[in-house]
Amino acid sequence: MAKAMVYLQSGGPTAVINCSLYGAIQEAKKHPEIGGIYGSLNGIEGLINDDLIDLRAEDDDTIELIKQTPGAILGTTRFKMPADLGADLYRKVCDTVKAHDIGFIFVNGGNDSMDTCDKLSKLFAQRGLPTKVIGIPKTVDNDLAITDHCIGYGSAAKYVINTVKAICVDAACYKKGKVFIVEIMGRNAGWLTASVDLLPIGCRPDLIYLPENVFVMDNFLRDLNSIYQVKGHVIIAISEGIVFERDTSTARVDAFGHIQLGGAADALSAVVERRLGLPTRSVELSLPQRADPILVSKVDQEEAFACSQKAVQSALSGETAKMVIIKRLSDKPYKVEYALEDVSKIANAEKEVPSSMMRGITRLDDSFREYLRPLIDGEVHPRFKDGVFESAVLKKAKVE
Amino acid sequence: MAKAMVYLQSGGPTAVINCSLYGAIQEAKKHPEIGGIYGSLNGIEGLINDDLIDLRAEDDDTIELIKQTPGAILGTTRFKMPADLGADLYRKVCDTVKAHDIGFIFVNGGNDSMDTCDKLSKLFAQRGLPTKVIGIPKTVDNDLAITDHCIGYGSAAKYVINTVKAICVDAACYKKGKVFIVEIMGRNAGWLTASVDLLPIGCRPDLIYLPENVFVMDNFLRDLNSIYQVKGHVIIAISEGIVFERDTSTARVDAFGHIQLGGAADALSAVVERRLGLPTRSVELSLPQRADPILVSKVDQEEAFACSQKAVQSALSGETAKMVIIKRLSDKPYKVEYALEDVSKIANAEKEVPSSMMRGITRLDDSFREYLRPLIDGEVHPRFKDGVFESAVLKKAKVE
Repeated sequence: MAKAMVYLQSGGPTAVINCSLYGAIQEAKKHPEIGGIYGSLNGIEGLINDDLIDLRAEDDDTIELIKQTPGAILGTTRFKMPADLGADLYRKVCDTVKAHDIGFIFVNGGNDSMDTCDKLSKLFAQRGLPTKVIGIPKTVDNDLAITDHCIGYGSAAKYVINTVKAICVDAACYKKGKVFIVEIMGRNAGWLTASVDLLPIGCRPDLIYLPENVFVMDNFLRDLNSIYQVKGHVIIAISEGIVFERDTSTARVDAFGHIQLGGAADALSAVVERRLGLPTRSVELSLPQRADPILVSKVDQEEAFACSQKAVQSALSGETAKMVIIKRLSDKPYKVEYALEDVSKIANAEKEVPSSMMRGITRLDDSFREYLRPLIDGEVHPRFKDGVFESAVLKKAKVE
Repeated sequence: MAKAMVYLQSGGPTAVINCSLYGAIQEAKKHPEIGGIYGSLNGIEGLINDDLIDLRAEDDDTIELIKQTPGAILGTTRFKMPADLGADLYRKVCDTVKAHDIGFIFVNGGNDSMDTCDKLSKLFAQRGLPTKVIGIPKTVDNDLAITDHCIGYGSAAKYVINTVKAICVDAACYKKGKVFIVEIMGRNAGWLTASVDLLPIGCRPDLIYLPENVFVMDNFLRDLNSIYQVKGHVIIAISEGIVFERDTSTARVDAFGHIQLGGAADALSAVVERRLGLPTRSVELSLPQRADPILVSKVDQEEAFACSQKAVQSALSGETAKMVIIKRLSDKPYKVEYALEDVSKIANAEKEVPSSMMRGITRLDDSFREYLRPLIDGEVHPRFKDGVFESAVLKKAKVE
């Protein structure tokens, strides 16, 4: 008897988050053991609230277009499931699973989402439900443990590298320029910020600061000032998560009283202006880093398809409580294989840039560049209409 | 006797500023009346300081690559020439012109640069020099008078439209979202900000604010709040030049004591958080608007070539003190022709978005969309190597 599968998108979107979904749908359609192909709206919230849509009801052109659609097309969530598997929310999840005879659940996300994946696996084991749960890695931060890299990182890095190259070339065209401080995503892990070190001298940032290292303001000001005096302008790349004492007059506090992440470049600019008297400009790469559908890496896109294929095949062969991981076999030529790892080993862990890949505080090592280079390779050419990229809009036929 | 030509880039770069240069070089090479093809480094500064480079010394591949190189490849300037044509700086310009037997000068720029163009023409007339001076329009702001539109606007609009679409789609994927305030270039004219109204409902900003209209804070807060209560998130597009009273604790002052442009979205976010208590995020599109070489409009690129061809041909036929303008003959099919206008009529004038193209304060009219649509049409596919767009580096052989 065929059973239904449900697919969840979870956490922050990436440029290829919907490519992973595409891969899962296309693979699922090949297997008669899979009946319904459902999407859970807003991640785990859809399983709790019985809010599922029928992805077989979408036409072929829509399915093709989701590959180039930014955001999480099923909706996403940052909702964290409680530790107590006896909580009422879990009963509601089980009700949904039984109501629709769900045999397979795929959770596409990062650290927190793999925690959800882990809890669901334990829940079903405890309740004696045969439903299989497989995680599919996704994060621009590239900070999941064990896997060589994460789906979504290559495209975000490709966007960041190309955009920062354009900024560097643009910034060099005035005789007397500014201090440009470019802020790149990455709270605890600097993988994405580090990516700009792949650019050649002449069009790359002069100094790169990752959250893995202690940020020393006096050294930062000294180093940038000495470069400015020679070149007439300086480009600095910083992770949003670098930690320094902010001037309270410039720190931004959100509606809930928390200091907002993002805004590190603004705060740092204010310090540079006050202490060095140099003209500065902060540039936050912001949402396009994770949303831009144009500068997607072809390698990343193809790996998104492949990881999802592996996930579907693994669930069908009886695996559960696993995440698909990527193992790198060689750099040149670039070769990988896909495998499984216990999701409990990945949930809530975080992989930082190792010190062996750094060279001092403000540069990366060749080993990092060799690691990164294949991940941004190859261009995709999204479909445009009248000068604007096309995107999918789902019918969202409710599963009754 | 063949005479030399000199090409100047002036003011802020655009994504196609080097396409205009490419068009002029390729056209100049067809005419034996033109001897040296020179670039003036940093605009008028190169003419003042006799700082010219030989563009015939660059190889064909470099010349091809300048089409996809961001920034002003000859360097640019915001230097404003003095009103008094007797000033010593003008003597130095004349010395350079005579030293290299310069017959033709092309100034590629916006309002201020056309003022330079105007002054040079008057200078040469006064001193009895036969050197012809022709302006080539360039600005992402699209605010030059008389011409239907400006070279560079279509590509900047294409970047802004596609990037804002991706932001809108991304922003919609959480159940409870934020107020997103997207800041777009445009100090006095809102052409670039207005461009996002081309997007269809569902993936376009809810409210659009141009500097042409008076910004009323209470109306802004009321309108965004009522949309937020219904949709759970709001996207707002503002021009960097909109004027409102800033909270002095958030206003940024540069090293010279001036309030910095840019930062309007940050300042407005602080107001929204304080007065409405809503979570907000500001997104400044920043330098990539004028530098991104990927989302270039093919129409804009081809018009860049064509305007420069017209400029070179006009100078050779004896015209001077003119700027090339674009006349639109029809929208569908889109047809233009190139003509000349007295540069004195264009220098220092500014064309704002007319009220006939607006619908109320926060939306644009169909007539604007019809005007804009052809300008962003067609994709270019820049050359990439190892995942990064290629760019030209000039030899910069000094003209002795």
